[in-house]
Amino acid sequence: MFEFMTIRELYELLRANNMMEMDGLEYVQLQGWIKTNRNNGQVGFIELNDGTYFKSCQLVYTKSLENFEEVGRSLTGTAMTIIGRFKLTPEMKQPFEVELTEAVIDAPCSNDYPLQKKRHSFEYLREIPHLRPRTNTFNAVFRVRSALAMALHEFFQNQGFVYVHAPIITGNDAEGAGEAFTVTTREDGKYHEDFFGKRASLTVSGQLHVEAYALAYRDVYTFGPTFRAENSNTKKHASEFWMCEPEMAFADLEDNINLMEDMVKSCIEYVFANCPEEMQFFNNFIDKDKTLIERLKKVVDTPFAKITYEKALAELKEVEEQFEYKIHWGMDIQTEHEKYLTEKYGPVFVMDYPKESKAFYMRLNDDNRTVAATDLLMPVVGELCGGSQREERYDALLKRMNEMNVPVEPLQWYLDLRKYGCCIHSGFGVGFERLLMYITAMENIRDVSSYPRTPRNLEF
Amino acid sequence: MFEFMTIRELYELLRANNMMEMDGLEYVQLQGWIKTNRNNGQVGFIELNDGTYFKSCQLVYTKSLENFEEVGRSLTGTAMTIIGRFKLTPEMKQPFEVELTEAVIDAPCSNDYPLQKKRHSFEYLREIPHLRPRTNTFNAVFRVRSALAMALHEFFQNQGFVYVHAPIITGNDAEGAGEAFTVTTREDGKYHEDFFGKRASLTVSGQLHVEAYALAYRDVYTFGPTFRAENSNTKKHASEFWMCEPEMAFADLEDNINLMEDMVKSCIEYVFANCPEEMQFFNNFIDKDKTLIERLKKVVDTPFAKITYEKALAELKEVEEQFEYKIHWGMDIQTEHEKYLTEKYGPVFVMDYPKESKAFYMRLNDDNRTVAATDLLMPVVGELCGGSQREERYDALLKRMNEMNVPVEPLQWYLDLRKYGCCIHSGFGVGFERLLMYITAMENIRDVSSYPRTPRNLEF
Repeated sequence: MFEFMTIRELYELLRANNMMEMDGLEYVQLQGWIKTNRNNGQVGFIELNDGTYFKSCQLVYTKSLENFEEVGRSLTGTAMTIIGRFKLTPEMKQPFEVELTEAVIDAPCSNDYPLQKKRHSFEYLREIPHLRPRTNTFNAVFRVRSALAMALHEFFQNQGFVYVHAPIITGNDAEGAGEAFTVTTREDGKYHEDFFGKRASLTVSGQLHVEAYALAYRDVYTFGPTFRAENSNTKKHASEFWMCEPEMAFADLEDNINLMEDMVKSCIEYVFANCPEEMQFFNNFIDKDKTLIERLKKVVDTPFAKITYEKALAELKEVEEQFEYKIHWGMDIQTEHEKYLTEKYGPVFVMDYPKESKAFYMRLNDDNRTVAATDLLMPVVGELCGGSQREERYDALLKRMNEMNVPVEPLQWYLDLRKYGCCIHSGFGVGFERLLMYITAMENIRDVSSYPRTPRNLEF
Repeated sequence: MFEFMTIRELYELLRANNMMEMDGLEYVQLQGWIKTNRNNGQVGFIELNDGTYFKSCQLVYTKSLENFEEVGRSLTGTAMTIIGRFKLTPEMKQPFEVELTEAVIDAPCSNDYPLQKKRHSFEYLREIPHLRPRTNTFNAVFRVRSALAMALHEFFQNQGFVYVHAPIITGNDAEGAGEAFTVTTREDGKYHEDFFGKRASLTVSGQLHVEAYALAYRDVYTFGPTFRAENSNTKKHASEFWMCEPEMAFADLEDNINLMEDMVKSCIEYVFANCPEEMQFFNNFIDKDKTLIERLKKVVDTPFAKITYEKALAELKEVEEQFEYKIHWGMDIQTEHEKYLTEKYGPVFVMDYPKESKAFYMRLNDDNRTVAATDLLMPVVGELCGGSQREERYDALLKRMNEMNVPVEPLQWYLDLRKYGCCIHSGFGVGFERLLMYITAMENIRDVSSYPRTPRNLEF
C-alpha cells in the first residue's frame, strides 16, 4: 500500500504541522526528475524535484533496491517514478526523506543535458528557454509569474470588475504611431487587397477599446499581450509583453490612484502568501542587497505619497546641481530624478503632467496646460504604472486629437462614445513583466518572459 | 445621510434575505445609465442600470424633485448620479425602488443614440461593438465571458497548475501551415532584413512551447489569444480567438480525458454559481428550446462516455443509410455523425484516431495506425475540445515529422525535449469562444468576441 503524493503536498502537510497525518504516511509514490544523484556503491542519494514545489525531496537508495545499478547511473534530468518509505528527519537539513523500495526509470536523460549541476549564467540560459524553467531561478520566476497573474484576476474579480479580452489585431495604431507591427498575409504591402481589406496591426494597448466596456459595466479590466516594434535593446523593453489595463466609469484621478495603490499592495501580498519559498530565494540569491522582502513589506504597509508634477519640479530644482538633466517645465522626469523622488518619498504618484508630454485621450485640467494623468514611481525600479482620467468631453477630445495630429476617422467610434452618456472615467496600465521584475528583483525582461521576443531574437 | 451602493449590492442583500440591513437602508446613492424613462408630467419612472448587475433598478421621481423637467427629458443612455429613498416593493414586479430626492445628470445622451428601446438584430449590433455590451444580451454574454475565464483560472490554479504565457509571435508555424498571419515591419517580404531577422507569425497554438513547461512543472496551462488566417466565413470561425491549453507530465490519454471532463463540468458550475440571472436569460431568450439550463445541469451530473474511433465507425456503419457522408476508415467524423453519436451517448470522447488524420506530435499507438488522441463531442454543438498524449519518443517523433513533411530544423528544440527526461505527457486545447457559445447558447462567434476579427472585418 502506498499513496501518490506530490512534493508540494508533503511540504504542505509539514507546514500545517500535521504530524498525525505524517505519522500515518508510510509508503509514498513520487514522480519527478533527478536534480542530483550520487552514490558510493552501497548507498545513494537522489534529489528529486517533481515540479509542483520549489523544493526537492531527498531519496535514499541502497543495495537492497533491485535496480540499484540502473538507478545509480541515472543522470541529472532523468524522469522517474518511485515508491519508498517516508521518514521525517528533523535532525537533518531536509525535513524528510524517502527510502526507495521501488524505482522505475520513466525516461533517461542524455549526457549532453545542458543543465549540469554548476551554476549557469542568465545569458547562457536565455539560449535554452525550453529548459531553463527546470533551474531554481527560473522555476521560481515562472511560478511567481503564474501566481501574480492570478493575483491580478482575483484582485479585480473580487471587486466585481469584468475581464475583457481587448482585440489583439487592430485597425488603428493611434497610440503606437510607428511602433506597431503589421499583420498581413501578403508580401507586397497592398493592404487594401489584404486579409482584412486594410492595414492591420498588433495592439499596443487595449485601453481605447475597453473604455467602451467601462461605459457599459462600470468597472472592467484587460489582461493580455501587447506589442512594440521598437528597435531598442534595453533590459526593460521587449517586443511582446503582457499588460493589465483597468478602466472605471464614474471615477476620477483620485479613484484611479487609489485603485493602483491597492492593486500593487494586493499583488505583493498574494505572492508572499502563495510563493513564500520563491520570495525567500529571490531575497537571498537575486536581490543585490538581500532586502527584497523587507522592502516589499514596507511598501505594503506604507501609504503611497502624491505630488504634482509642478511640485516635483520645484523640489528637483532645489538640488538641480546634482543632476545631469537640468530641470524645466515640460521635461520628462528622468531616471536620476525618479531616484531622488522615490528616495525622499518612497512610492510616489506624480500627477498633472504638461499636456504636451502625454497622450491625446487624457483629460485636460482647468489650468488648460496640464492633464489629469499620473505615473506611479517606485524605489529602485522607477515607473511601474501610468494612468489618467480620460477626456470625456467630445469637443475637448476632438481639439486635442487635431492638435496632436491623431487621425479622427479611424477613431470616430471612440469619439462617439462621448455623445452617449459619457460620464467621467479613468484607468491605467501596468506592464505585467515590469511588475513581476519589481516583485522578484529580476533585472532583465528576457528573464521573466517564457520565450522573450526582442529585435532579431525569435529562435524558439 | 446616504450610502453609495451598486445595484449588484442591493440585489445581493435581497438574495441573502438580509432584511435587517435592508430595513436600515434609508437613502442610497446610485450611479448609472438610463435604460428607459417615462413620465406623465407628475410622476416619472426611470429604469437605471449601473453596469454592475444584469438587472436594473427602478427610480421614481415626482414634481417635488428640484430638476423634474431636466430629469424628465433625459434620454435613454444618459449617465446620472442619484440619491433617493430605498423602498422594498414586494407587491410589485421589481423587488425594490428608489424615490429620488436628488438627481444629477452627469452626461446626457445624444438623440441619435443607436440603442433605442426596440429590439435590435444581432447583425445590426455587430456594427456597433463599442455600444452593444449595453444591451441585455451582450451585457450577459460578456459578463459570462469574464466569469468563464475566471472559472478556468480557478479550476487549474486550485489544482496547482502553473499558468504559462506562451509566445504570441512565433518563428515556426508548423501547426498552422499556411494559415498563420505574418508579423512584419516591412512591406516587401524581405524577412531576413525584418525586425526579427526571419519570418515571424502569429501563433496558432501554444502547445509546443508549453510542453517544455510541463516537463518542468508537471501541470501547466496556457490561456491566451491564437490566430488563423483562414478565409472562411462561418459562424464558428474567427481570425482571432482565445484558447486554453493544459499540459500534464506523467499523464496518459485517460488522465487527459478525466481532466477535460472535470474542466467542462467545473466551468458550467462556476457560471451557474456566478451568473444565475444571465443563465436564466440565455435559457429563456436565446436558447431555441428553452432547455439550456436543464441540458447543462444534466451534463454536470452525467459521466461522459468514451468510445474508440473504430467503434464509432462501426456504430455509424450500422445506420449508414441515414448519412450523406458514407462511413470508411480514415474519414473525418462529420457534423451529422457527431449528432448521431451525441444523441446516443450524450457527451462522448472519441479516442484513437487514424494517425493520418491527426497532428505529428500525437503519440502513436502500438497498433501503429492510430494515435492516442481524443475529441470531446457535445450534444448540439459537436466538437468542444481535442487533445492527445504527446509522442515522447525521439525516434518515433522524428519519423512522424519526416512522414508528414514537418520541417525539423525550426523544431529541433522541441525534438530535443525528448532527450532530456521526457516522461509521458498529455494535453488538450479548448477554444474559449466555443466553450462560451456552448454555455450561453449563442450561435455566432462574432457575438461572443468583444471586437470580432474575421475576413475583411476590422472596423473597430
